[in-house]
Amino acid sequence: MQERHINPHFRRQKAASWQELDPEQWIEQIRNGNMPALSKAISLLENQKPEARKKAGELLRLAMPHTGNALRIGLTGIPGAGKSTMIESLGQHFVDAGKKMAVLAVDPSSGRTGGSILGDKTRMEQLSRNPNVFIRPSPSGGQLGGVAKTTRETMYLCEAAGFDLILVETVGVGQSEIEVKRMTDIFILITIPGAGDELQGIKRGIMEMADLIIVNKAEGTMKPAAEIAARQLRNALRFLPANPNGIRPQVLLAAALSNEGIPQVAKVIRQIEQQLIRTGHLEISRNIQARDWMFESLRQRWEYLLQHHPALRQIIAEKQQEIALRNISPFDAADAVWMELLQIIRNENIDL
Amino acid sequence: MQERHINPHFRRQKAASWQELDPEQWIEQIRNGNMPALSKAISLLENQKPEARKKAGELLRLAMPHTGNALRIGLTGIPGAGKSTMIESLGQHFVDAGKKMAVLAVDPSSGRTGGSILGDKTRMEQLSRNPNVFIRPSPSGGQLGGVAKTTRETMYLCEAAGFDLILVETVGVGQSEIEVKRMTDIFILITIPGAGDELQGIKRGIMEMADLIIVNKAEGTMKPAAEIAARQLRNALRFLPANPNGIRPQVLLAAALSNEGIPQVAKVIRQIEQQLIRTGHLEISRNIQARDWMFESLRQRWEYLLQHHPALRQIIAEKQQEIALRNISPFDAADAVWMELLQIIRNENIDL
Repeated sequence: MQERHINPHFRRQKAASWQELDPEQWIEQIRNGNMPALSKAISLLENQKPEARKKAGELLRLAMPHTGNALRIGLTGIPGAGKSTMIESLGQHFVDAGKKMAVLAVDPSSGRTGGSILGDKTRMEQLSRNPNVFIRPSPSGGQLGGVAKTTRETMYLCEAAGFDLILVETVGVGQSEIEVKRMTDIFILITIPGAGDELQGIKRGIMEMADLIIVNKAEGTMKPAAEIAARQLRNALRFLPANPNGIRPQVLLAAALSNEGIPQVAKVIRQIEQQLIRTGHLEISRNIQARDWMFESLRQRWEYLLQHHPALRQIIAEKQQEIALRNISPFDAADAVWMELLQIIRNENIDL
Repeated sequence: MQERHINPHFRRQKAASWQELDPEQWIEQIRNGNMPALSKAISLLENQKPEARKKAGELLRLAMPHTGNALRIGLTGIPGAGKSTMIESLGQHFVDAGKKMAVLAVDPSSGRTGGSILGDKTRMEQLSRNPNVFIRPSPSGGQLGGVAKTTRETMYLCEAAGFDLILVETVGVGQSEIEVKRMTDIFILITIPGAGDELQGIKRGIMEMADLIIVNKAEGTMKPAAEIAARQLRNALRFLPANPNGIRPQVLLAAALSNEGIPQVAKVIRQIEQQLIRTGHLEISRNIQARDWMFESLRQRWEYLLQHHPALRQIIAEKQQEIALRNISPFDAADAVWMELLQIIRNENIDL
């Protein structure tokens, strides 16, 4: 990305706090490809305080007219399937073709092992040095079973920053795939040949969500196993109807490490995009994505109120105690909290 | 279950509507093992109308002192792993040992294929004819990625009805496993030997949630493959820490169809239960379950308001329109809906 007209405030990130920054100028900087300004805005999105949410809302409002022009790709696969290498290889291909790409990672929802997907950044080193590429690991401390709350909003800011492709990477035990699928246009599943290995399998439900399945590491001694795996996947897919967006998922072989099959993968992604545009399914999907965002945003306001209002926090703590002592049913506890919530809204000037 | 003192209202289910029934009498019937009364109460739980929720709340309040005495078992596995057969076999074992068991099924969250898990009831035929067994398929039309909203409350009613074991069965693309894990004491994963078959695998995240893994269909020609699969699973588990509840998951071989290995599975389940009681983890887990229920119940009230209040429905529809036309950002749309919601609570007598 070119860096033009860069406000020195954004050069010295520590210097200016978000409170001091003018939203219009800020968005202007983001639109001009100022990466520190983009990073700072994403950090603001991750800040749940009401004042921060308000300012984030202003930024998003100003960004809105400049969004919607990127292709949104979701990418999933078990650990070890080679997602990072695939992103690096595919990303390089797109960048070589003159595209700008943002990579957003979503917290694994395994909950137990935690761990950062892109913590292992060295594997994306080559790509991350490219000025046309922006890589954002997920914020730490994602909630169990949930996608990083702000991934969707981050995506919109990246679009305003002029990226042509937004790649949202996820690995997890389930919900995160569903959420990423719902916030992207094309959903890609990466798998590897795993003959005889219980742990390399993929779940049927996830296969059914994919618009494209890539059998990675299809080279050298793994190639025959990869071909078998691809055949099995194709066989299984034959029994499934086309996806709701009209796509009949293809199964492609690739070896991201040596770039084998990558041009074909990129080509099929473009074909899927074209089909989605032609059939109107891209627009349908975009409307659903925007609606989801609205509900998600509403939910966040509600949860913030529950989690941060002192009187609500207190009654929730009390009721939890009573539940533990079996003095009250959780159903009645919810009732009491709900009544308190209604009272607070009626008596206090809450607008969040 | 013995049927004593049965109110004729409950014999002729169609005759009495839930509005006419006295909650205290109703719970009394449920506690006496009146299965139609239990079924009717579960149907009431599935009714989202405020009056129904209110009556359901009364039932749950009355049921509360009689809950908590069952062992809550979650059971998951891919389609084809033999979950139904396992439940039948394991259920028969427990029933023969004098236990009463309820089986609750959770909607698959695949969303696309839908389909009922227990629709295929013939496979549980033997079990379902047993008076000490209650089988409840999930209500149709579960939401994408979600467990049937009322599974948790159903579980409590079943406990009040005197069941010793509540088995919650789930299959799905992810979230439902997480939810079922959170509402049960012991989580069991059923898998089958699937050497060379990509589709039979299990995801690492789900393996990490299990307190017990059963490799099913370990008989005849499948036996060697099952032993290999078990060994691989045990190897993989060695690298994982103990579960947060202190359990180190065992991998057992079984063949539910011929009852092979079933006594051992039942024994290990009992051992896990004993360990959880001894270490205090059962109580910790029960408190978390109750707290989750409170929050879930709160969330349902909030969602009901959003979905059913005419003014909110209208503004949501309007804002969706504006979002589609890109006249407004989803973030601002949420803001407008939120403001309307606050207004409604302030001006109307909403207590749900």
